[in-house]
Parts: sequence; structure tokens; C-alpha cells
Amino acid sequence: MKLDKNLNILIVGLGLIGGSYAMGLHKKGYKISAIDVNENSVKYALSHNMIDSGSAEIDESLISSADLIIFALYPHIFLDWIKQNQHLFKSGAVITDVTGVKSCIVYEIQGDLRKDVEFIAAHPMAGKEVYGVENADDSIFKEANYIVVPTDSNTFNAIEICKAIGETLGFARISSLPPKAHDEMIGFVSQLTHCIAICLMTCSKSEHLVDYTGDSFRDLTRIARINENMWSELFLLNKDALLMQMEIFMSEFNEFYELLKNEDTEKMKEKMKQSTARRALFDK
Amino acid sequence: MKLDKNLNILIVGLGLIGGSYAMGLHKKGYKISAIDVNENSVKYALSHNMIDSGSAEIDESLISSADLIIFALYPHIFLDWIKQNQHLFKSGAVITDVTGVKSCIVYEIQGDLRKDVEFIAAHPMAGKEVYGVENADDSIFKEANYIVVPTDSNTFNAIEICKAIGETLGFARISSLPPKAHDEMIGFVSQLTHCIAICLMTCSKSEHLVDYTGDSFRDLTRIARINENMWSELFLLNKDALLMQMEIFMSEFNEFYELLKNEDTEKMKEKMKQSTARRALFDK
Repeated sequence: MKLDKNLNILIVGLGLIGGSYAMGLHKKGYKISAIDVNENSVKYALSHNMIDSGSAEIDESLISSADLIIFALYPHIFLDWIKQNQHLFKSGAVITDVTGVKSCIVYEIQGDLRKDVEFIAAHPMAGKEVYGVENADDSIFKEANYIVVPTDSNTFNAIEICKAIGETLGFARISSLPPKAHDEMIGFVSQLTHCIAICLMTCSKSEHLVDYTGDSFRDLTRIARINENMWSELFLLNKDALLMQMEIFMSEFNEFYELLKNEDTEKMKEKMKQSTARRALFDK
Repeated sequence: MKLDKNLNILIVGLGLIGGSYAMGLHKKGYKISAIDVNENSVKYALSHNMIDSGSAEIDESLISSADLIIFALYPHIFLDWIKQNQHLFKSGAVITDVTGVKSCIVYEIQGDLRKDVEFIAAHPMAGKEVYGVENADDSIFKEANYIVVPTDSNTFNAIEICKAIGETLGFARISSLPPKAHDEMIGFVSQLTHCIAICLMTCSKSEHLVDYTGDSFRDLTRIARINENMWSELFLLNKDALLMQMEIFMSEFNEFYELLKNEDTEKMKEKMKQSTARRALFDK
């Protein structure tokens, strides 16, 4: 099987990401159907030409005719959905997802899944501070990373299909990481930064500071506008990796605190030089 | 005295901020001279029509003819400069600055200064990740805050002149804060955020992460490119206020760490809702 326009592609979950996938793939001429419990989301996607067909029910014909199924659900709903409905999958179907954490779900799904169906995990590192299919926007993928997260039990063919989805959606960079390395990286670059942004907003009564915030504070807190249901679930599912990253950060922050307290200017400058040099690599 | 085009305005220190002041004021038709120890900076400003005259020396005629002097020097150089050269000031001259910390310098300068000259402190909250007069750019003031930082010994007239400089340069918002409140605010919105950005870059060997960094990590570390000489000095000069803000942040971050460790989803969600609501105020 290859990603081509004869495939029946089913998207389960028409939120911001599911909707943006539908928009991007449908634009390119792929046959897209969708299932979402919210009938209004399905209607919106249909009326905005993001999908060819859709249902708010567990529609057996949509599911059993799908060659490729993309799950864009909250992790716990995703796991339940698979358990309850996998008997409907077409034999030979490839299943992928958009979940932001991997170790905790990939092995469980692969273990539970029918052996004639393959699950290959993917993480599109894209988002917005808003949600819902009404905010779907496939341009969010343009500057973003798409990570395929295979395990030893995945086939070359499924990995290639999964990569092709990222390419078709126009991601800036497609790469591949094993689940554990993926979760450590996400714990650091995404979840730790969200924890910091949240704490910057909650640690002080900041209402009166709005008037004085410059770009620095605005930049560091942009992501403090956060979907609390999704992110608390993602944090818990990646708890160990995130706690470890938080500990590493706290230890470094505390070290810097001590340098300042002891007026160790030279060591503070060394830290600043190191941060400047490392950050400069991002702007190349 | 009012800020008008007959005044002789002297800028001491042609770095990024001094140069941007010169550019902005000269464009509007003000008579600008400048002193900088670096002859190339003076030449650059002259050849780019940012100043009318300039010198790399302690030029007595430039200093003694100045009605308004704006210091854009590192804090410790600024203090020394005043001590050594204040005998050259014109009687009745108004002196201001651009220094990012206040309590530690304002009272000392006002105490040492000749009684026929007035120092009124100001803090333009603007900058760039680059420096030097070659990067001067008065458009950095457009979205920025300008804070006048008067003490009980300042006159209404000097405060008004100081505000008029900010207005002329086109700052988005002009406000006024006493030194202590200013330094606490700066410790929080500016210095704490720089400490966090630095530690995010130094806490992990992040070279291999460049490939995976999304917008979140980029946003939180943009200011990790930092002028280590200037910022280490500013941190030390505001040490007590900054240490206090770092403690408040660490305590909040540690609380969030414990919530995650104990899987207290409801309290994590509460924090996220609070951060979302507070951050939303910034985007109004």
C-alpha cells in the first residue's frame, strides 16, 4: 500500500489538528471521511469542503472501508476507541495518530491490536492557542516538525506511508525517533516550556504588570494560554520524562540563583555566553 | 525649560540605545551631539546623519553647552563619568539616562550631583539581541514602554522634559514608577525571564534538539542571546529584587512539580485555567 488518491482515508476526531489534516489532505485531492462525536463539527467540515463524508456515529461502513485511519483524539479516548471498535477495521488497514506522547500508548495499542492491522505512531509538532475544527488551518504545518515514532514491530511500508502523510501536509521537516527518545525530547522542548509559561503567569498577581510587559515576558508566556484538559492529560502520560526535565531545569536555575547570590560574575557570564552560542544555532 | 528644538542635546554613549535615541531625535529635527570613547561609533553616527557633532574625547565645549544630557552607558561607567566630569555641566542642565535598574544608581547620582543640575531617571524598555550603533533603529521604540522613574527630589519641570523625550521618540506607552516599584517590576518581567531563557539553553546539551524545536522553545529562548557584560551588571545591580523574583518563581514551579508528581489533575487544571485567563488579558 502507498499513500495515493485511491485510498479511503478516515480521520477520527475533528478538532484543530484533525480538522487541519482533513483540510490539507482534501485540498490535495485525497478522499477524506471523518467521524466526530460532535455533529456540528462534522457539519462544519462538510460545509467547508474539508471532507467528502462524515458521521457523528460509529459508522461501520466508513470504518470498514477505510484503508488508512488517522486518530486525532485525546489519548485516553483514542485507546478506548481502538479497543471497542477494532473489530470493524478493514484487514490490512494502516492506523496512525497525532498524539503528543508516545511510550505510554504506542506499545499498548500495538499489543492490543488485531494482527492484520498496523499502528504506526506520528507526532505533528504543530498547534495553536485555539481549538476546534472551526480554527482548522493547514498552514500551521508549514514551519513545523513531523516525527514518525516507529517501534521494532513496524513495517517499512507503514513507516513510509506515515512519512508520506507528513510530506503531503507540507511539514518543514520529517524525522523519525523511537518512543523513549521522542518522549524525552517532548518533555524538554514542549512540556517543560509550557510548565514554565504557566508558572510565570501564576507565580505573581500579574494583572497590574500587563502595562509594563515587553516582548520578553510576552514571548515567554504566549503558550500559557493552554487547553487544560488536553495538556494535563499529556503531562500525566509523560509524567516520568517531564518530571526528569523539570528536575534538570530546577537544578540549573538554582545554580544560577546561587551564582547571583554569591555575586560570581565570571560564572554568570560563562552561562550567558553558553546560552548565546547555543541559541545562535537556532537562528542560522 | 521645555523640550524644544533650540536645546542642545548631548548623548553620552553611542551603543544600540544611544544610537537609536540619536537617530529618532535627529530625524525629528533636534540638535544632537554625542560623545563615545569609540571613535568609529562617532564617525558612524556622523556619516549616517544621526548626530550633528561628536567626539571621542571628553569635549568640554560639547558638555558645557548641553542643556539636556542623555546617558546611555553601562551603569558603572555612568556613575564614574558623572563624578569625574560634572564640573563641566552647564548650570540648569537636565540629565537623564536609559539604565535598566534604578534604586542602586538614582539616589547615588542625585546625592553626588551639583545642586544646580537635575538628574531625572528614565528607562526605555526596548532592545534587540544585537548591539552597537551600527544596529541603531528607532523603530524599536514603537511598541515599547518608556518609564520615568522620579524621586521626591525631582521637579515637575524635569519630569515633563523626561516624558517629552519618550513621546518624541514614539514610545507606545509613557508611565511613571518610583525606583523600588520599578526594580521589582523589572526583576519580574525582564530579568527573571532572561534567567529562565538562559537556564533553558544551558540545562541540557541542546545541540541535537535544534531539529525538533517548535515555536514554544524558540519563543522561550529568543532572549537567551544576551550581552553578558551588560546583563550580568544589571542582574548584580538589582540583585535583591531579582533573587526575590527567582524565589517566587522557583516556589511556584516546585508546587507545579509536586502536583504532577502526585497526579493532582484537578489542581494542575486550575493552574492552567488561571494562566490562560491571565495571559488572555495581554492579547486584548
